[in-house]
Amino acid sequence: MLTLYELSGKADLRFSPFCWRARLAIGHKGLPARYVPVTFTDKDTIAFSGQKRVPVLVDGPETVADSWKIASHLEHAYPDRPSLFGGDIGRSFTRFIDAWATQSVFPSLVRIVLCDVLDHLDQSDAAYVKTTRERDLGTTWDKLREERDAFVPELRKSLAPARSILRQQEFLAGNEPLYADYSLFGLFQWARLISNYRLLDPMDSVEAWRCRMVAHTSRLIPDPQSVPPNI
Amino acid sequence: MLTLYELSGKADLRFSPFCWRARLAIGHKGLPARYVPVTFTDKDTIAFSGQKRVPVLVDGPETVADSWKIASHLEHAYPDRPSLFGGDIGRSFTRFIDAWATQSVFPSLVRIVLCDVLDHLDQSDAAYVKTTRERDLGTTWDKLREERDAFVPELRKSLAPARSILRQQEFLAGNEPLYADYSLFGLFQWARLISNYRLLDPMDSVEAWRCRMVAHTSRLIPDPQSVPPNI
Repeated sequence: MLTLYELSGKADLRFSPFCWRARLAIGHKGLPARYVPVTFTDKDTIAFSGQKRVPVLVDGPETVADSWKIASHLEHAYPDRPSLFGGDIGRSFTRFIDAWATQSVFPSLVRIVLCDVLDHLDQSDAAYVKTTRERDLGTTWDKLREERDAFVPELRKSLAPARSILRQQEFLAGNEPLYADYSLFGLFQWARLISNYRLLDPMDSVEAWRCRMVAHTSRLIPDPQSVPPNI
Repeated sequence: MLTLYELSGKADLRFSPFCWRARLAIGHKGLPARYVPVTFTDKDTIAFSGQKRVPVLVDGPETVADSWKIASHLEHAYPDRPSLFGGDIGRSFTRFIDAWATQSVFPSLVRIVLCDVLDHLDQSDAAYVKTTRERDLGTTWDKLREERDAFVPELRKSLAPARSILRQQEFLAGNEPLYADYSLFGLFQWARLISNYRLLDPMDSVEAWRCRMVAHTSRLIPDPQSVPPNI
């Protein structure tokens, strides 16, 4: 039995994009797991991991932090289960997509939806997130909200390479989703769980993929307590 | 014997990024080919292809235009030769990199080095390129040159996902370069053939990869008439 420590908000909403990557990797491998909530301001729960960030996976004697390392661990430790990467070249692909999603797509996504996250946090977590994010982004919460619309073109432009490929195939990895898809989708899952903001054009091939991923991942995860039914 | 029609400049310099993709794909497959020059203003040579853009590949009875279609044709037609994509998931990877390089990296690269291309064109081609590119980019040649430095941070930022992966492995595709690497490198090959502009930080993992690719591709191509020795 695996244990995944993941970020939790008000009403135990599990919204973290990086925890979703790990959660979907576990689901793809079909492994039984329990999912333990950790709040922003109570990190004592994961002090045993020697660092302060979720997700943290405990697999028997092994403790693994960081979503990419968790996926790599699962792929290595459970080779007989469905592959997350699709072999060596697939591993290169997946690592590229993972970095591209985090570095080229996530920054503008954050600028659009982060301002809605406070509604999903208890008071002490909300205060912590507001202060640290205002500092990290060099802005104020009011400005974040005011300027959000301006980041939509940048987000859509950043998705251009995914758009090309998704015009011609159903998933980034091919006919079936693999971790490459989960890696990008984790970010959109975060966005839809904390915000109602319309990010993509309804006719965008990335939007069609996003809806396919909502459908696919809702079947993948045995414990959908945090997944609202709406797309 | 294959025939590749490719763009040619003054002194028969073959600089086109998309023709380089096709040329390197042929080299990777180890196929004999002749390389026929086409200038910007003399497209009669490729009128038989039913369109006006190079590269155009003629392989026996088949005529294929567009670098991605050429790579796909070669991969399909010569399955016993070294693979360009690395299987089905590799094909998804490669298509993604191809679109990412063209759509997310090339635009800022164009803004930095295009202004140097006129030195490598005969008079009529130079006039044609200046007029059409000023129109397409909505700017003037003088402004292109003035503003080039401002696009360096954008270029470097766009390469972030490649930078991550290249810190940990030698090539985008893994231990050996495949078409994913050629796809991005074609753009840098264009840049180095027409311009002396320093694009990347010497300590950048992408710069180390670029130098490895210069070394690798100089061995790959049997006819290096257009490849200067300097990196």
